[in-house]
Amino acid sequence: MTEPLRIALAGLGTVGAGVIRLIDANAALIARRAGRPIEVVAVSARDRAKDRGVDITRFDWVDDTAELARHPRADVVVELVGGSDGPALTLARASLAGGKSFVTANKAMIAHHGLELANAAETAGLALKFEAAVAGGVPVIKGLREGAAANEIARVYGILNGTCNFILSKMEAEGRDFAEILAEAQRLGYAEADPSFDIDGVDAAHKLSILASLAFGTQPAFDQVAITGVRHVLAADIAEAASLGYRIRLLGVADAGSGGLFQRVHPHLVPLSHPLAHVTGSTNAVVAEGNFVGRLLFQGAGAGDGPTASAVVADLIDIARGEFGPPYAMPAAALAAPGAADTGERTGRAYVRFTVADKVGVLAEIAAAMRDAGVSIESLMQRGANPDGSVLVAIVTHEGPERAVAQALDKLRGSASLTGEPMWMHILGG
Amino acid sequence: MTEPLRIALAGLGTVGAGVIRLIDANAALIARRAGRPIEVVAVSARDRAKDRGVDITRFDWVDDTAELARHPRADVVVELVGGSDGPALTLARASLAGGKSFVTANKAMIAHHGLELANAAETAGLALKFEAAVAGGVPVIKGLREGAAANEIARVYGILNGTCNFILSKMEAEGRDFAEILAEAQRLGYAEADPSFDIDGVDAAHKLSILASLAFGTQPAFDQVAITGVRHVLAADIAEAASLGYRIRLLGVADAGSGGLFQRVHPHLVPLSHPLAHVTGSTNAVVAEGNFVGRLLFQGAGAGDGPTASAVVADLIDIARGEFGPPYAMPAAALAAPGAADTGERTGRAYVRFTVADKVGVLAEIAAAMRDAGVSIESLMQRGANPDGSVLVAIVTHEGPERAVAQALDKLRGSASLTGEPMWMHILGG
Repeated sequence: MTEPLRIALAGLGTVGAGVIRLIDANAALIARRAGRPIEVVAVSARDRAKDRGVDITRFDWVDDTAELARHPRADVVVELVGGSDGPALTLARASLAGGKSFVTANKAMIAHHGLELANAAETAGLALKFEAAVAGGVPVIKGLREGAAANEIARVYGILNGTCNFILSKMEAEGRDFAEILAEAQRLGYAEADPSFDIDGVDAAHKLSILASLAFGTQPAFDQVAITGVRHVLAADIAEAASLGYRIRLLGVADAGSGGLFQRVHPHLVPLSHPLAHVTGSTNAVVAEGNFVGRLLFQGAGAGDGPTASAVVADLIDIARGEFGPPYAMPAAALAAPGAADTGERTGRAYVRFTVADKVGVLAEIAAAMRDAGVSIESLMQRGANPDGSVLVAIVTHEGPERAVAQALDKLRGSASLTGEPMWMHILGG
Repeated sequence: MTEPLRIALAGLGTVGAGVIRLIDANAALIARRAGRPIEVVAVSARDRAKDRGVDITRFDWVDDTAELARHPRADVVVELVGGSDGPALTLARASLAGGKSFVTANKAMIAHHGLELANAAETAGLALKFEAAVAGGVPVIKGLREGAAANEIARVYGILNGTCNFILSKMEAEGRDFAEILAEAQRLGYAEADPSFDIDGVDAAHKLSILASLAFGTQPAFDQVAITGVRHVLAADIAEAASLGYRIRLLGVADAGSGGLFQRVHPHLVPLSHPLAHVTGSTNAVVAEGNFVGRLLFQGAGAGDGPTASAVVADLIDIARGEFGPPYAMPAAALAAPGAADTGERTGRAYVRFTVADKVGVLAEIAAAMRDAGVSIESLMQRGANPDGSVLVAIVTHEGPERAVAQALDKLRGSASLTGEPMWMHILGG
């Protein structure tokens, strides 16, 4: 048996402990598949004494996480600390500068600094791998970098945040409203105490920007992602969507048309005929559309210690086998600078829901604003008054420019007839 | 730019022409992603003159396919001839013996001779790759070999034959019977003139045996796959299944329990809550269940020139990058000889449908046979007489040993009350 691949592990939260558990449980299997054992040799975390359910006394303990980059026996540093900057980034830079390959689950750091780190890794002939950063255990980075590598990708999109999908599919199953389900998810540990990173779409946007780089050969451009979360989706929206043959999902969508790179995280209406409509709970799913392969779907657990550890160790196995290359499929220096697409030029069908006062003339006002902006209405539903006396009006538009919908909403936004912000959702097109 | 990867291509049917078209269309992109161009240099097929919609005059023409293995400029031989033995196998052996890596879409050959060829490739330090052999464009070989490599796989299963799924989902959508849809599929080119390889499950079994090797680290054992096709599924079965909340899918299922390797291709009832129930048309989908990652799903086009070419060229890109290793994830010599599991020891829920004469006492006879064999019945449906006067009786059993169901059916098989063979389908369990 050849030399083991030796790991220095930063961060011993649930995922870090999961990586140790996985390497313990599947050690023999991993050695057979990787051609050599994978061993943790050193760890670092905030609290040495904390009980994590795994024995860490057999590893070197390093107080200062940054020191892992200089650990004399480690070949690879695994970073599970989190945070786009700070100790994670310091460790990443030092590891690659110091001749160690680097594996991370840190989507925020890769979204913000992936290009710099990929350049450093390539220059040094080292691996930088981040399968666990997108869709947890689902090998979608590999799917894009390698599985779909022969294709020009027209669009990549998917359900990238398990917390949001858990909430939306529970709202759907139980007919209850957002705040109630969120509170329950927090009690059960499915949502963070401060959930805004998840429910406001930032986490999904980090992941989307990583997928977009891989799919389109463009430099990561997190700042160009247009982000709307799920906070303002009502149970009534879900019911309306269902009556029309759709389910509501928070989708990250990226495409690279002639106008430049388009990246958006937004709640969408997904037709029941589409596989993403049937993805429930905290599952993640990513679709890539290639010019030869057609529509590929990758689906599985998007979070959790087991799935995330699975992706981290898959990266380690690739490194142990020597089967790795440029992190973004092509050399980082060859990635094109993306021009941001003009969203207004996009066309599509839309769902727009208004909360309005129950009085004469409101419908006419909405219809007129749509007409004046050139929005063609496919269907309009008005449902009886809410307990607070307001009424919901939901519109589905025909295919048309998004700019027109935006104009209509701008015009209506000041209206005294509306008792709340309109909710605009896109309908996922084929 | 470094030297191109040079390809000798055997077989210029739709897939072969598709590979040339893909390499033409995406040449610049492939060169960026692979780090060097991929070029076809030589081709061989039966008929040089045939119009394939691609210009082959720019390549060396080789009359004798086997000669491609000795082509002076080719680095890799791509085999798209088909057939488990004969010219394809001769070419594979000669290519690997002659120092050329080998890429194939040939599931029959890999199912029968994959182990021998993997040994040859590993000894020579060459690549043997066959992503296109299973699930067309879906990178499921890579998903198991690499993406899920950190996991002990408990079970791998899926929809592996597009023709069968096309027929079943069309029967489902239109309520029509098998023979009618098959004839239509043949007219449309979705089914072969001689469809038995597809509809009797052999094609799916080839693919399943390849997946099982990868998932469980066992030697390919195609001969151990228990195979039942879709020929005897009735529209009435699909309707019964629907009324119970299931869809019928031809699944290949493999697991490696304590009793040995279990491999079966059989029509199954799939609950609507499972993603495979929503896979329609000629789409393929594979699920792998890992001990850390949980349930992974890979889905996409299972056949066709574009998707198959996508998988072939993905393999070529891996080779161009130098990112390849043992074809079965671990050295072929390390694959365990699989003991075949005893199917009778398996437990599960089952659907059994009888076609019976419309006369007194038939139900009692069926019920007694079930009772005597110890089969516990969850529900029993009897539907009114068919045009020919026969009646359908469908039973769903509780969880129990398959042996008991087999015994009951053995007992009933001779009965004068049955007007046709009973149809036994397994219900996919969680």
